[in-house]
Amino acid sequence: MRIFHHPDQALHRPERELHNGGFVAYAEDARRIESILAVLGEPEMPDDRGEGPIRAVHDGDYVDFLKSAYARWKAAGRDGDAFGYAWPVVGRRPLTLNRIDGDLGRYSFDAASPISQGTWEAAYATAQTAIGACDAVLRGEGAAFALCRPPGHHAGHDYLGGYCYLNAAAIAAQHARDNGVARVAILDIDYHHGNGTQDIFYTRGDVFYASLHADPATDFPFYWGHADETGEGAGQGATLNLPLARGTTLAAFRSAQAKALDAIAAFDPGMLIVSLGVDTWDGDPISQFAIRTQDYRALAADIAARGWPTAILMEGGYAIEALGANVESFLSGFPG
Amino acid sequence: MRIFHHPDQALHRPERELHNGGFVAYAEDARRIESILAVLGEPEMPDDRGEGPIRAVHDGDYVDFLKSAYARWKAAGRDGDAFGYAWPVVGRRPLTLNRIDGDLGRYSFDAASPISQGTWEAAYATAQTAIGACDAVLRGEGAAFALCRPPGHHAGHDYLGGYCYLNAAAIAAQHARDNGVARVAILDIDYHHGNGTQDIFYTRGDVFYASLHADPATDFPFYWGHADETGEGAGQGATLNLPLARGTTLAAFRSAQAKALDAIAAFDPGMLIVSLGVDTWDGDPISQFAIRTQDYRALAADIAARGWPTAILMEGGYAIEALGANVESFLSGFPG
Ligand SMILES: [Zn+2]
Ligand SMILES: [Zn+2]
Repeated sequence: MRIFHHPDQALHRPERELHNGGFVAYAEDARRIESILAVLGEPEMPDDRGEGPIRAVHDGDYVDFLKSAYARWKAAGRDGDAFGYAWPVVGRRPLTLNRIDGDLGRYSFDAASPISQGTWEAAYATAQTAIGACDAVLRGEGAAFALCRPPGHHAGHDYLGGYCYLNAAAIAAQHARDNGVARVAILDIDYHHGNGTQDIFYTRGDVFYASLHADPATDFPFYWGHADETGEGAGQGATLNLPLARGTTLAAFRSAQAKALDAIAAFDPGMLIVSLGVDTWDGDPISQFAIRTQDYRALAADIAARGWPTAILMEGGYAIEALGANVESFLSGFPG
Repeated sequence: MRIFHHPDQALHRPERELHNGGFVAYAEDARRIESILAVLGEPEMPDDRGEGPIRAVHDGDYVDFLKSAYARWKAAGRDGDAFGYAWPVVGRRPLTLNRIDGDLGRYSFDAASPISQGTWEAAYATAQTAIGACDAVLRGEGAAFALCRPPGHHAGHDYLGGYCYLNAAAIAAQHARDNGVARVAILDIDYHHGNGTQDIFYTRGDVFYASLHADPATDFPFYWGHADETGEGAGQGATLNLPLARGTTLAAFRSAQAKALDAIAAFDPGMLIVSLGVDTWDGDPISQFAIRTQDYRALAADIAARGWPTAILMEGGYAIEALGANVESFLSGFPG
């Protein structure tokens, strides 16, 4: 399988994140990349497609914010990495603010996703990596893998959060749409709900979003991913959320995935994007499912059996030493 | 002038707050009370009116959350004071969550307002103090002062933030409404916009809210208090926001206050509630206006000249040593 990755993706280096009342080391560590490449071998560099495919998904003012935020933070005399401390929970709307702290809250939904030096460059590179894998599939590959990092599925049109800045899955799906694929499905099997992806396509009928994830009643992102969120307007019925209890093992995960795949089959997509998180793994330090390394091969085989051209995009997974084996197991479930 | 205060208001003791990228000492320190009482002398204890007047303003589930949050935080094994790390910025709605971190985000809008042991008791006491001053005015006092603390004007129906947990001004206004005052006006002269008070009455025509404050383009709470926010539905025109530039001195503040008072006069209230913040003072450590101690007397005299029965409620002010003199100066502008 062709593997895409760009070295600039390592440039995003937050030192710490706010979690459960204090600062802890940033779990979404750049060493995640090395762990995966150590097993998969040398990746291909993606072509540089510019900001066009990014701006086809993300609002222009948000992209401009991302590009300038760290410099504005430093210009304001702040130490460390940039993050907000207040959020527009009652009625977000366009506002012209003249303070970086205000914009950080306006364009995010948590205090756990800092902007460091290099965040924009890494997010830009992760988007190109996703487009590279998408293009490979558009040109005839049965499946391709994008080693995205930072991940993307928590980022919305105009907000960051959950370690995510640009939504690679949404950018790839939109890129496929803009290159002639009439209907694109996204299957999100990260431990966490992909609230950003859901929001981006919530009112659209041309991109189906199905997600298996820890019940948001107990797990981040809490306010999205409940079973009653099914889309709106033209997107009514094109969102499927399957929350699962902590402790979920292969059997329950696999049968929920079959349900998602059946719904996707009914949608009849021309292409599938998989948001692959291996934070569903038994030993993940921040998550609570019990999927074993060998289970990923079985889950992937179930997806591959449907026969859709498939771009696989990396999302979460925080047990750094185990990432390579878990991703390799998953990719081995696809033919070739 | 009769002065109300309850000693339980000191029980709220957060250690630190998140601000501009790191933890700093909690600015809304309980010693603020001592500074004011050292000048004003022994206050009256308010009667205990129970939770009824609180629940007439705040949602029941929010009150229950406030009462239980700290114990739930400790039961979850967390250190220090309780605050959230993610917020429902896209579409808040009723959700049953089983994790304190999720509820902390659901019921707040910032990471700077921790819940400590004693927060509920202090917020409850500050509400009773506000009701005490309101009752004194309802029974014939021309003016009365409630030494509220923690402050209240950033707290909404169902959210905390900006050091505020229960909205004393809103509780007093609603209490006046429920005791026969047909129209109540709130004049908010704290440095910061009182977003909670605004939200609580935004769609109502029976409570007028006028606020002078630092422009939210540069100052907390950023997402509320812009001049184009004027109320909705039955409340259209009953909200007046007058943002002022950093550096504002008495002349500009006084003329903006005259504008607010004229609008209130047109509304013809039966009672006035003043949300008094002295963080407009020249030397306030977190704010950027340039009101001098002697200026507060002039501002108060302008208000008193209108002749409305007036309950004055303490909001912000963080230059601890100067609080007593600033509050005393303000109260001296009222007759008697
Ligand atoms: Zn995840
Ligand atoms: Zn204030």
